[in-house]
Amino acid sequence: MPELRQDVVSGRWVLIAPDRDRRPNEFRRTAVHRAAACPFCHGHESATPQALAVYPRPAATSLQPTWSVRVVPNLYPAVQAAAGGYAPPQPPPTAPELYPTRAATGVHEVIIESPRHIVGAASQTAEETFWTCMAYRDRLQAARQHPDIRHALIFKNVGADAGASLQHLHSQLVGLPLVPTEFDREWSRALAYYDQHNRTCLFCQLLQTEEKDGSRVVWQSDQFVAYCPFASRFAMEVWLLPRRHCSHFEITSDDTLEDLARAIHDCLTRLELAVPSVSYNMVLHTSPFDTTQQDHYHWHLEILPRISTVAGLEWGTGCHINPVDPLEAAQRLRTARGPAA
Amino acid sequence: MPELRQDVVSGRWVLIAPDRDRRPNEFRRTAVHRAAACPFCHGHESATPQALAVYPRPAATSLQPTWSVRVVPNLYPAVQAAAGGYAPPQPPPTAPELYPTRAATGVHEVIIESPRHIVGAASQTAEETFWTCMAYRDRLQAARQHPDIRHALIFKNVGADAGASLQHLHSQLVGLPLVPTEFDREWSRALAYYDQHNRTCLFCQLLQTEEKDGSRVVWQSDQFVAYCPFASRFAMEVWLLPRRHCSHFEITSDDTLEDLARAIHDCLTRLELAVPSVSYNMVLHTSPFDTTQQDHYHWHLEILPRISTVAGLEWGTGCHINPVDPLEAAQRLRTARGPAA
Repeated sequence: MPELRQDVVSGRWVLIAPDRDRRPNEFRRTAVHRAAACPFCHGHESATPQALAVYPRPAATSLQPTWSVRVVPNLYPAVQAAAGGYAPPQPPPTAPELYPTRAATGVHEVIIESPRHIVGAASQTAEETFWTCMAYRDRLQAARQHPDIRHALIFKNVGADAGASLQHLHSQLVGLPLVPTEFDREWSRALAYYDQHNRTCLFCQLLQTEEKDGSRVVWQSDQFVAYCPFASRFAMEVWLLPRRHCSHFEITSDDTLEDLARAIHDCLTRLELAVPSVSYNMVLHTSPFDTTQQDHYHWHLEILPRISTVAGLEWGTGCHINPVDPLEAAQRLRTARGPAA
Repeated sequence: MPELRQDVVSGRWVLIAPDRDRRPNEFRRTAVHRAAACPFCHGHESATPQALAVYPRPAATSLQPTWSVRVVPNLYPAVQAAAGGYAPPQPPPTAPELYPTRAATGVHEVIIESPRHIVGAASQTAEETFWTCMAYRDRLQAARQHPDIRHALIFKNVGADAGASLQHLHSQLVGLPLVPTEFDREWSRALAYYDQHNRTCLFCQLLQTEEKDGSRVVWQSDQFVAYCPFASRFAMEVWLLPRRHCSHFEITSDDTLEDLARAIHDCLTRLELAVPSVSYNMVLHTSPFDTTQQDHYHWHLEILPRISTVAGLEWGTGCHINPVDPLEAAQRLRTARGPAA
């Protein structure tokens, strides 16, 4: 089974998952028959494990799909539900502290975002985006019940350059038995800011300041603001934050999910229009499961376009080079308009 | 000029460098005439700025190149020598602490590793690899003299998937006015280990333990050991460490550089043979310039193959999925043999 290992030099945790190498990769094959063979398409439901959740769709005829969004277990999981039989590797007796490991227990789910073979957010219906957001919330609530899972990430890889192995629009949920080092750092920094600034949430402050300035804002509604962060690490990066302070995504109301679905659809469509054929990741940052509502942390979505390739400088220092000023990125995204806008 | 900005949420520094977008990218063009137009090839010396250093080569005829390795300023620098005229952006008066910035002063140099249009380490002559290592040392010594530079990274991007924009084998040096957050973390962790383990260097301990175990060792000589780290974040990752404790690469002796050149050539050639057409980064971790010899830090090279694409899970958590067990990686690299082995 997969194993979590900590690199003692950097402190980073790594998932060693040899079975992942067996998974199919459409992007390495020729383009022919992709849709015909796609395990996520309507009619191919038997190609995936049994669904964990299904969000329905009214069907007019028996040939039409009866679902909008389906959640299934990942066939090639990076983490596994049961730790049964996990035997940790024997560390050398002289320096066991150099080899921290633990079983990679957790869940790895796939959220199929449409019964049709669509490859970008622009092609998704409003209903499908809404059910996808609903699935994010429901699956986080389900993961939270799992005694071994401390933290979960929801993310989406769109396009080969973003690491997608299947084209059909989908998101993933990975629930981990630990809080990843990078999240822990963000959490601690937000807590320090809160303590040092008269109990102010760092994210609420960023949101207000960006909104007042306006030059990096891409989109706003009653409940959400999207902007290009001042220190964006990726060109055309966008963060999407709820206006109302909330630390845990999984307690979001239906009404807020409706507005979120509009925000996500609008932001991703703008990106897809501004940068044709763009690959991107979208990641949800939300609080660990073993915490209750926190005044210092604020859940948010990060949209990370993969336009230029991350290279030696980034891997060597963590310092990214971003060739597009976030001011210009925001302007390009604000003026990108789809057929519906 | 380029600017350094800190993301207050993660603590990461980012280089905002809009001019970098103008640089050429061979990998986006058709393959025709690449070598003919390559600015790094012998005969095209006028296509680059004046050389900062040239390592000679005996030439039998006037048509042959007279250099093995040349160092030139990067035409599209991520950092710039002079901070003259840098005007920091005006932060909002209500929350200036959210927008830390500074001028991206520093140096950005290119080390052209051969006068011939070679695209991988396997094609490099022993002499060229040696002069490249010599250039690493000499250019670090030069960067150290620069009053604004606190830390420098030497790195190499080989192949489009590793972020190379020109094919011709080259390395780069980027000198920064600050110590990057990730390096600082590594440094602090090594210092904590040293303090907690009876003044033992973390890297010396890793090296001894890996050598004694042997199963992850790829290569060793009198002066160097290369192994696949237990918690490798990339498939087929290799770290190369000097046996003798040393914190600063720039004080390496000629004799040690000779052995290092053999080690680098051997490890990279094995990787290129084990994974045909592999893209990879190589990064040098060495101590900040404002320190002298440190007992707790040990310079080393990390070879980071770019076989699978980094995706949402990695960007969202910092936790990489590695589909190849480092034991298997080491075995594949040990048994990969070139014509000369």
